[in-house]
Amino acid sequence: MFMKFELHPNFSEKELITDLNLCKVLANNVADFPWIFLIPMRPNIRQIHDLSKQDQYLLMDEIDHCSKIMKQLFNPDQLNIAAIGNITPQLHMHIICRHKQDPYWPDVVWNKPTNPILINDFHHQINLIKKHI
Amino acid sequence: MFMKFELHPNFSEKELITDLNLCKVLANNVADFPWIFLIPMRPNIRQIHDLSKQDQYLLMDEIDHCSKIMKQLFNPDQLNIAAIGNITPQLHMHIICRHKQDPYWPDVVWNKPTNPILINDFHHQINLIKKHI
Repeated sequence: MFMKFELHPNFSEKELITDLNLCKVLANNVADFPWIFLIPMRPNIRQIHDLSKQDQYLLMDEIDHCSKIMKQLFNPDQLNIAAIGNITPQLHMHIICRHKQDPYWPDVVWNKPTNPILINDFHHQINLIKKHI
Repeated sequence: MFMKFELHPNFSEKELITDLNLCKVLANNVADFPWIFLIPMRPNIRQIHDLSKQDQYLLMDEIDHCSKIMKQLFNPDQLNIAAIGNITPQLHMHIICRHKQDPYWPDVVWNKPTNPILINDFHHQINLIKKHI
């Protein structure tokens, strides 16, 4: 049976930055936390261990690549990198820039109230990442 | 300069399960969430992207290996896998078994109040993991 990758509808409001070899890279439209998602373009994958070994290494390569870009562009004190998926059952890695001055430091930011990012700032952020990725 | 890996003191109350090729595997003493830490035994590593490429792949191998064991032993609905490190500045991956009936589902469990696991249950859990890892 041929199965095609389709992005889960929960990501429909996120902005596409680019497609890497394995992952779709999306931007999260929240202020205060430069935040991207890496979503392996493979059908029916919910957990890291559902990926083939080769895809797991590709995922690691792309986490490394995107982490370095986010670090360079936004100078976070720490990156929070996670596969959670309690709400959206399609494997997605969060890469979130955290600063000691951000509203929730040192707590985690998932499921906390956030403000939407101003549209101009969001486009600026996306273009900046696009240039470097 | 020779630099030796030393476990960060914040892990002093965690129980050692085993040393894999790259990572020390520790158990977290909380009830309701079978929860382990994978800590690469390399000095001065704070983020995944601080690891060499070879160590990144080893880390991925050990995440895959431990995820499958935790899945098999505790039958979680979802594994939460994360490198956060806002509080403890030594790279450590969380692998947490989440069940739809657990106290915080579908929210994340970091920095939430948890109960300590009964000592007999904890030893049982550790021995079970030790047998399979």
